Amino acid sequence: MDEKYMRRAIELARKGEGHVNPNPLVGAVIVRDEEILAEGYHARYGDLHAERSAFANLKTDATGAEMYVTLEPCCHYGKQPPCTQAIIEHGIRKVYVGSDDPNALVAGKGIRQLQDAGITVETHVLKEECDALNDVFFHYITTHTPYVVMKYAMTMDGKIACHTGASKWVTGEEARAHVQRMRNKYTGIMVGVQTVLADDPLLTCRIPEGRNPIRIICDSSLRTPLDSQIVRTAEEVETILATVKEDPERIAAYEEKGVQVLVTRQKDGRVDLADLMEKLGERKIDSILLEGGGTLNYSALQAGIVQHVQAYIAPKLFGGGEGFTPVRGIGVDDPAQAWILTNRKVTSLGEDLLMEADVI
Amino acid sequence: MDEKYMRRAIELARKGEGHVNPNPLVGAVIVRDEEILAEGYHARYGDLHAERSAFANLKTDATGAEMYVTLEPCCHYGKQPPCTQAIIEHGIRKVYVGSDDPNALVAGKGIRQLQDAGITVETHVLKEECDALNDVFFHYITTHTPYVVMKYAMTMDGKIACHTGASKWVTGEEARAHVQRMRNKYTGIMVGVQTVLADDPLLTCRIPEGRNPIRIICDSSLRTPLDSQIVRTAEEVETILATVKEDPERIAAYEEKGVQVLVTRQKDGRVDLADLMEKLGERKIDSILLEGGGTLNYSALQAGIVQHVQAYIAPKLFGGGEGFTPVRGIGVDDPAQAWILTNRKVTSLGEDLLMEADVI
Repeated sequence: MDEKYMRRAIELARKGEGHVNPNPLVGAVIVRDEEILAEGYHARYGDLHAERSAFANLKTDATGAEMYVTLEPCCHYGKQPPCTQAIIEHGIRKVYVGSDDPNALVAGKGIRQLQDAGITVETHVLKEECDALNDVFFHYITTHTPYVVMKYAMTMDGKIACHTGASKWVTGEEARAHVQRMRNKYTGIMVGVQTVLADDPLLTCRIPEGRNPIRIICDSSLRTPLDSQIVRTAEEVETILATVKEDPERIAAYEEKGVQVLVTRQKDGRVDLADLMEKLGERKIDSILLEGGGTLNYSALQAGIVQHVQAYIAPKLFGGGEGFTPVRGIGVDDPAQAWILTNRKVTSLGEDLLMEADVI
Repeated sequence: MDEKYMRRAIELARKGEGHVNPNPLVGAVIVRDEEILAEGYHARYGDLHAERSAFANLKTDATGAEMYVTLEPCCHYGKQPPCTQAIIEHGIRKVYVGSDDPNALVAGKGIRQLQDAGITVETHVLKEECDALNDVFFHYITTHTPYVVMKYAMTMDGKIACHTGASKWVTGEEARAHVQRMRNKYTGIMVGVQTVLADDPLLTCRIPEGRNPIRIICDSSLRTPLDSQIVRTAEEVETILATVKEDPERIAAYEEKGVQVLVTRQKDGRVDLADLMEKLGERKIDSILLEGGGTLNYSALQAGIVQHVQAYIAPKLFGGGEGFTPVRGIGVDDPAQAWILTNRKVTSLGEDLLMEADVI
């Protein structure tokens, strides 16, 4: 076993980022006598699985070779025939697996099928790194609701804007470019109507070859202007207005412009975020980048829909006692009641920091 | 030249932390034929300089040896005879120097004295690391005012307390232990009277063999209670009340309990912080850890007295739109007017982060 081949498989898996949802990111490498015979990865939803993509790239017979694959190979007929079958047919001698498949249809069965065919299987190779590829998939496949990432950019004194509301820019270019990669990575992007009214944003992904996230606006009373940039571009970029206001005339006006209107259950007269997540999950939206202001962020935390927090922190100070803080609302009464985050990571992005962690 | 000896000298220099102020931290190593003949450092204000301490530790003759010293050797008579003289007398062949001495009485002259005596001098060896030892000294020697470090502990959503004011605790044990080391390192500690009224703190250093910082309370209208912990312990721990209220009776009551009362110039009816820094500088207070709340922090930034910011950031969220943020006041109108920080560093302290940077 050589970890470098699994690292290569992880590298390959990442190439599918933004294109395989709601499938997992998977990479595979076929090795014999310390030579890579072929590589593959799951490139796009509906395309070949990583293992079959590697076999398709073979220039030679693979009998007696070893395979490194970041996720337990599938053993059931889905959009593709089972990968276990291909592995057996190609005479692979040994398989190294990273993550377990959390899908109840597969878990452990793929490995047993291989073992029954006389193939040696070693599991949990670089498991942590392999698992990290698929936070979204593991959450979505078990809960059927989107993996929600709460993202904000703040100063070192905790401000997302000046007291005037001005917020261009808090962070530098590298941090902002990183946000664009996140917009490509996650299936949806969500803001509150306040953000639309204040900034009239496009919420698209501005990287070359990037994929635009599905735009979701939380708009309990349908205040999104019909001439906003979001509505005017709804024919090109999928857009969902989540509301509790059943106003047929207003809804028809949005729909005419290509906006999908999603009426949810109410909670205190506003969109019930837990219900919204279930409805978005049904639409195969496996992940959402939440770029809400402080009020929507607080509601999302209270509703228990947030899995991960990304705080971009700039080495500057705005000052200001009123207002623009990443999470508003009344807040907890005591530090012991705080939302505790875990698996804290930190990344340098130019002068800025990205501090991120999982909600427990 | 071998950087490892300069690294050792830096390590030695740090041992004087908290005890040499307002002198610089300095370490020295004497080496011959890849063998360390002696080591020394400036251990306490008034004690031997690092170079002389190293010579005092010699067990053998040092003729022809090389010396590594973190700061340009002094060449003038201060509390100690010049170190250049000792280096020449001991027959040192070559001297490696880290930082330049910013003291106008010394700068460059120490090196020239050595060169005139036939000694080879190489300067700026690990200069950056050596300079980092003496941020305080370099500031104080050139401005005669204290180096002020604004310190606060906040959640990942920028809160230093819950809306109720509860703040025990924001950060974990490692971060809090680090703050104690800072209290040992810096000569003074400063808070506003609001902090005294709210928390009745002691503001002492709670590490073994630690040195208590001089406590400085900004109290424009002398509201510090006579029965507060600060006042009750003023005979044991040096305590200064900075005020603009010239009330002889009240002042006498504080002084009777051992508190020093310092009347400063007024600015908008309150303590003029720039004037206070000059007066504290005259008292040889070379550095201050500012543990003020958001209002004092904002005043300090506006007065331009802050050199460095330390933000301890905990991976948790309090929420809350009103109140307890590290820097209050009105704040800047536009991101372009923000206080920009530079030389950003980040340190992991358990689950928490310490993000720190210099004010430009």
